[in-house]
Amino acid sequence: MTKKERLILVTNDDGVNAKGISELTAIAMKFGKVVVVAPDRGQSGMSHSVSLSEPIYLNKIKSEQGLEIYSCSGTPVDSVKIALHKILDTAPDLIISGINHGSNASVSAIYSGTIGAAREGSLNGIPSIGFSLLNHAHDADFSASIIYAEKIIEKALQNGIPKRTCLNVNVPNIPKEQVKGVKICRQTHGKWVEEFDYRTSPSNKDYYWLTGKFSNFEPEATDTDEWALENNYVAVVPIEIDLTSYSVLETLSKWDF
Amino acid sequence: MTKKERLILVTNDDGVNAKGISELTAIAMKFGKVVVVAPDRGQSGMSHSVSLSEPIYLNKIKSEQGLEIYSCSGTPVDSVKIALHKILDTAPDLIISGINHGSNASVSAIYSGTIGAAREGSLNGIPSIGFSLLNHAHDADFSASIIYAEKIIEKALQNGIPKRTCLNVNVPNIPKEQVKGVKICRQTHGKWVEEFDYRTSPSNKDYYWLTGKFSNFEPEATDTDEWALENNYVAVVPIEIDLTSYSVLETLSKWDF
Repeated sequence: MTKKERLILVTNDDGVNAKGISELTAIAMKFGKVVVVAPDRGQSGMSHSVSLSEPIYLNKIKSEQGLEIYSCSGTPVDSVKIALHKILDTAPDLIISGINHGSNASVSAIYSGTIGAAREGSLNGIPSIGFSLLNHAHDADFSASIIYAEKIIEKALQNGIPKRTCLNVNVPNIPKEQVKGVKICRQTHGKWVEEFDYRTSPSNKDYYWLTGKFSNFEPEATDTDEWALENNYVAVVPIEIDLTSYSVLETLSKWDF
Repeated sequence: MTKKERLILVTNDDGVNAKGISELTAIAMKFGKVVVVAPDRGQSGMSHSVSLSEPIYLNKIKSEQGLEIYSCSGTPVDSVKIALHKILDTAPDLIISGINHGSNASVSAIYSGTIGAAREGSLNGIPSIGFSLLNHAHDADFSASIIYAEKIIEKALQNGIPKRTCLNVNVPNIPKEQVKGVKICRQTHGKWVEEFDYRTSPSNKDYYWLTGKFSNFEPEATDTDEWALENNYVAVVPIEIDLTSYSVLETLSKWDF
């Protein structure tokens, strides 16, 4: 397939105006015609959520040679759905989501709207990749992410991505010269240790902010995404759509009903 | 463990006032002391989302012997997090979510706030189960769900649920006498075929409603949750926290970077 024939859909969860999606759009344009459909505001932590009780508004905000940009009032997954079903005339050859400002390694992939969007692409049979940089700053330096996103997109277009799988790519927050390469990994076992910040509003109502920090349950393991990132590698985890725990099926079949 | 010692957390995604959660609370009270923490309004389709940019408000709405009920302004997953970290003095012995008004079989599990909440419990090392009835009506008949939820809770308390796994239980919408029993199944391959309902607001702004219907990619398979439900069985799918597609790790390791 030539660049001219290829169609790429770009989305994210930090919103259509984030630096990360503009970097990713620039990369995408090296590979084909690009349509961006992304939330009109930050939608971090939205996971695979969809708008079932609110209408979705769409705005076309740019249309030029080889690039169209739409903002969507819904979630990242809504953005993919409406792109596939209402905006694009043909299915895209690739869906890329990001570049997220902040890590989506380990269990963060479960909470992430960036990964939700990529997974939705994969559910629709389209090769899909989520990209994240381990830096939350709005003006983060994406130099290393740009190099590796380009390499990974190239490989994905060459080889295809196995069905019912999307890729979760995380890039360490270091200068590009220090990145040692790409590691194919599994998701680290861990969890967010929640801390709630307790406050009282001016009208004397109590409320909480969700904060917290990540706890790695297996810091010694060397085949995980967290290990790769701590050791200056770009981490690539293949993510499965099928949530079934096959190893547990047999255990449960012994429960006598 | 005696009923007196046991602590059960109940949540849902249809909101604290839904019929389904009041039925599930009544079941839970047969097994132990119950604390309900659930969204203050419907939160269907919220998946595993968390409130990162909005504060969370909590209201205690009932406190009697063996039962406390709180409403939470956040998502189903927020409700579990705040229950575990701010409301309960000790970890609960079981988390149950539902009974959802509507199916969470096949890929609906990915979009479901009911299953998000159960998965969050499992992420925190607590045996967790999501229950759903294949009927969206607010006054649905939960008679069959009540019988089977009780059976499944009993088995889960007896046997434990394997680590990093929660259970996704769906009950067919038929009279209890017609239910043939429980099937342990895998998640059906399928997807939602989206249809967007296109409208114009009174102020002349275009908008869309997400609708759609489920498409089963493998209607012939007999080991899936959709098959079980169509054949009058209660479907139990063990759901894995680890999203890694292990079968794809090797394929990707052949990509030459």
